[in-house]
Amino acid sequence: MTDKAATAETRQDRFERGMKVLTEIDGPAGQRVIDSLADISPELGHQVVAWGFGDIYQRPGLAPRDRQLVTLGMLTALGGCEPQLEVHINAALNVGLAPEEIIEALLHSAVYCGMPKAVNATFAAKRVFAERGLLPVKTR
Amino acid sequence: MTDKAATAETRQDRFERGMKVLTEIDGPAGQRVIDSLADISPELGHQVVAWGFGDIYQRPGLAPRDRQLVTLGMLTALGGCEPQLEVHINAALNVGLAPEEIIEALLHSAVYCGMPKAVNATFAAKRVFAERGLLPVKTR
Amino acid sequence: MTDKAATAETRQDRFERGMKVLTEIDGPAGQRVIDSLADISPELGHQVVAWGFGDIYQRPGLAPRDRQLVTLGMLTALGGCEPQLEVHINAALNVGLAPEEIIEALLHSAVYCGMPKAVNATFAAKRVFAERGLLPVKTR
Amino acid sequence: MTDKAATAETRQDRFERGMKVLTEIDGPAGQRVIDSLADISPELGHQVVAWGFGDIYQRPGLAPRDRQLVTLGMLTALGGCEPQLEVHINAALNVGLAPEEIIEALLHSAVYCGMPKAVNATFAAKRVFAERGLLPVKTR
Amino acid sequence: MTDKAATAETRQDRFERGMKVLTEIDGPAGQRVIDSLADISPELGHQVVAWGFGDIYQRPGLAPRDRQLVTLGMLTALGGCEPQLEVHINAALNVGLAPEEIIEALLHSAVYCGMPKAVNATFAAKRVFAERGLLPVKTR
Amino acid sequence: MTDKAATAETRQDRFERGMKVLTEIDGPAGQRVIDSLADISPELGHQVVAWGFGDIYQRPGLAPRDRQLVTLGMLTALGGCEPQLEVHINAALNVGLAPEEIIEALLHSAVYCGMPKAVNATFAAKRVFAERGLLPVKTR
Repeated sequence: MTDKAATAETRQDRFERGMKVLTEIDGPAGQRVIDSLADISPELGHQVVAWGFGDIYQRPGLAPRDRQLVTLGMLTALGGCEPQLEVHINAALNVGLAPEEIIEALLHSAVYCGMPKAVNATFAAKRVFAERGLLPVKTR
Repeated sequence: MTDKAATAETRQDRFERGMKVLTEIDGPAGQRVIDSLADISPELGHQVVAWGFGDIYQRPGLAPRDRQLVTLGMLTALGGCEPQLEVHINAALNVGLAPEEIIEALLHSAVYCGMPKAVNATFAAKRVFAERGLLPVKTR
Repeated sequence: MTDKAATAETRQDRFERGMKVLTEIDGPAGQRVIDSLADISPELGHQVVAWGFGDIYQRPGLAPRDRQLVTLGMLTALGGCEPQLEVHINAALNVGLAPEEIIEALLHSAVYCGMPKAVNATFAAKRVFAERGLLPVKTR
Repeated sequence: MTDKAATAETRQDRFERGMKVLTEIDGPAGQRVIDSLADISPELGHQVVAWGFGDIYQRPGLAPRDRQLVTLGMLTALGGCEPQLEVHINAALNVGLAPEEIIEALLHSAVYCGMPKAVNATFAAKRVFAERGLLPVKTR
Repeated sequence: MTDKAATAETRQDRFERGMKVLTEIDGPAGQRVIDSLADISPELGHQVVAWGFGDIYQRPGLAPRDRQLVTLGMLTALGGCEPQLEVHINAALNVGLAPEEIIEALLHSAVYCGMPKAVNATFAAKRVFAERGLLPVKTR
Repeated sequence: MTDKAATAETRQDRFERGMKVLTEIDGPAGQRVIDSLADISPELGHQVVAWGFGDIYQRPGLAPRDRQLVTLGMLTALGGCEPQLEVHINAALNVGLAPEEIIEALLHSAVYCGMPKAVNATFAAKRVFAERGLLPVKTR
C-alpha cells in the first residue's frame, strides 16, 4: 500500500474509486440508495461510497464473497436493517454466494442471534430470491 | 428545586405539567401518540407525559435543543425506532435545531452506529422534511 | 428426564413433538410462520418447531404462561421484532395471561427498555387485541 | 386508583413510597446502586426509586414475581446489563421464583436472544447463586 | 439428509455428535464454557453442544471457515459478547482463517456496526492473538 | 467545500488532519486507543483518525460540543461501550460541556434507553469525574 499511500487523491477521486466498487458489488440497488440520499444528505451518500466502498470494501485482505458473509451476519444481528439486508443479499448473490449458502448462513444466525432475527433475515432473503426467480431454495 | 420538592402534586397536576411541555416541544405529533395509546394503555400514555415530559424534559439543566440532539443520537443507535425518530425530528425543528444541524448529527452517527442505522435515521428525516417543505437540504 | 434421554427419536419424531406444543400455544399464527418458511428455509422452520418448541418450550421447569411473560420481555427489549411480538401476544392470551397483565408487563418494560420500545410493543398488542375484540383494555 | 390519583404527594412522598417497594424486592443490592449514584447523579437515583419503584413496580396489575420474570427476559435481551441482572436475579429469588425457574427462563432465552446472551445471563445467575449457597442447581 | 432424518438418536447421541464438532472447531475453549455451565445450567450446556454444534454447525451447506466469518460478524454487531468473540476468534484460527483475514473482517465491521463495536471486537482479537503469539499482525 | 474537494490529499495528509482534530478533542485518551491498535489493526486506527476525525468530526455543520452530546446519546443507547463512553465523557468536558449538562443528558437517556443503560453510562461518568476531581456533581 506504500504506493497508494503516496498518491494524492481529491474527494472526487475517492468517490469515483468507491463508485466503481459499489457498482460491481451491489449493482442498481446500491445506486438507488445513493440517489435517495441526494436531496437530504448528499454527504452521507458520498461517505457510503467514498469511505465504505472506496476505502474499506476495495481492500485486498478479504475476498468480496467473504465480506458479504460477514455483512449478512452483522445486519442480521443488528436488527431493524431489513432494507440493507435486501441490498446485501442481492450483493451476496452478485459476488458468488450460492442461494443455499446464504440461507444456511441465516439458519446459522439462529444460534447466535435467536430465532426472531434469523426469521426476519430469512424473510428478507425470500423477498430478494422471489424477485430473482430463485424460489424454492433447495436445501437439505 | 427545594420549593418544588416541597410542593404536593396530584397525579393530574403532574400530567398537566408534562402536557404543557409536550405540546411546546412536539406539537400535534406527541398528542397523536398519547391518543393512540388511550384504548390500549392509558397508563403508558400518562407516564410518557407525566414522567417523561413532566419530570425529566422540563428540568432546567439541559436546554430543549440539547435534549433533542441527545435524543436523536439515542433513537438512531437503538434502531427500529423510526416512528419515534419522526416525532423527535419534528421536535428538533420546533425547538430551534436547523435542518442542516439535524442532518449533520445523523451523518455523525455513521461513525458510532454504522452506515445502516445512519441511513435509516436519515430517511426518517427525509419523510419529516418532505412534509414540512424543507427539501432539498443545503449541506456542504 | 432419564427415561426421555434414553428414548431414541428420529428427526420427524422431534418435529411432531414440537408441532404439538406449537399448535397448543400459538395456534394458527405459529403455523403461518412455518408455512412461509417452506420455500425459502424449511430447515429454519424445522428448527423453530423441533428445537424451539419440541426441546425447549415443552420442558416442565417453567409454566407456559411464565414462558410467555419472559418472551414478551425479550421481544420488547430486542426491538424490531414486532411480527414476533404479535405472534407471542396471541400466544400469551392463549395460555392464560389476561389482557391487563400483558399491558402491565409492557408498561413495566418502559423502566428497563425505555419509552420507545415500550410504545412499539404496546402498539403490537393493540393490533392483536383489536383483532380479537379486546379493546378498550380496562387498566387502572 | 381514583383515590390515589386525587392524593397530592410531594417529591419526598413519592421517593419514600418507592423506597419501601425497593427494599422489599431488592434488599441491600438496590440500596447500594442508589448510594453509588449519590455523588454523581442523585436525581437518577431518585427517579429509579420514585418512578421505577414508586410509580411502576408497586402497581397491582402484575404480581412482583411476574415482574421479575419479564425483567429477566428484558435484561438478558438488552445485553451488557450484567450488573442489573445480578440485582434482579437476587430480587427474583426474594419474591419467590425458584432457582430452577430462573435457570429455565434463561435457557428459554436462548431461543429468542441466541446462545451468547443466554450464556452471559446464566453466568450472572451463577455468581448470585454462588453467593447465596444455591449451587449446584438441580435441573432436569 | 434422508438417511439421517430416518435415524433414531437418543439425547446422548446428539450430544456426542455435537461434542465431536465442538472439539474440532473450538478446542479446549469450548469445553471450558460447557464445564462452567455444569453446576448452574447443565441443560444450556447440553443445548449449546447438541443443538448448536450437533444440529446446526455440522450441516454441510456452509464451510466451517465461512460459519466463523458469519459468526464474527454477528458477535461484533450484538455487542457485549466479548467472551464469545474470544472463543470464536480462536475457532476462526483453528478452521483456517488467517489472522489478517480476521482483522480485515473486523475492520469491515466498522462500516456496518460503527467504530466502537469494531474497536471492542479488535481488542478481543488482540487478547487471543497475544496468547497465541500472533502479534504484531502484518496488515497492509 | 469546493476548494477542499478540489485539493488532492495523500493518505498521510488525511491522517494528519484527523490527528489534529483528535488531539484537540480527546487529548491523550484518544491517542491511547490508536496506540493500542498499532500491533493488531493499524488500519482501524488509521480509519478512526483519518475518517472519523479527519472527514466527519472536523466538518463545520455541527459544533464540537453538539457532536459530543449526540455521541453520548449514541454510546449510551448502544450498550457495552463503556470504554468509549469514558473517552467521550472526557472529550465532552474538553469541548465545553459542563459536568452538570453531561449528567443531565444521561438522566434524560433513561426515558429513551431505560434505567439500566442510563445507570451504566452514569457510572462511566463517575469514573471520569473522579479522575478529574469533579465529584460530587452539584445537580438540582
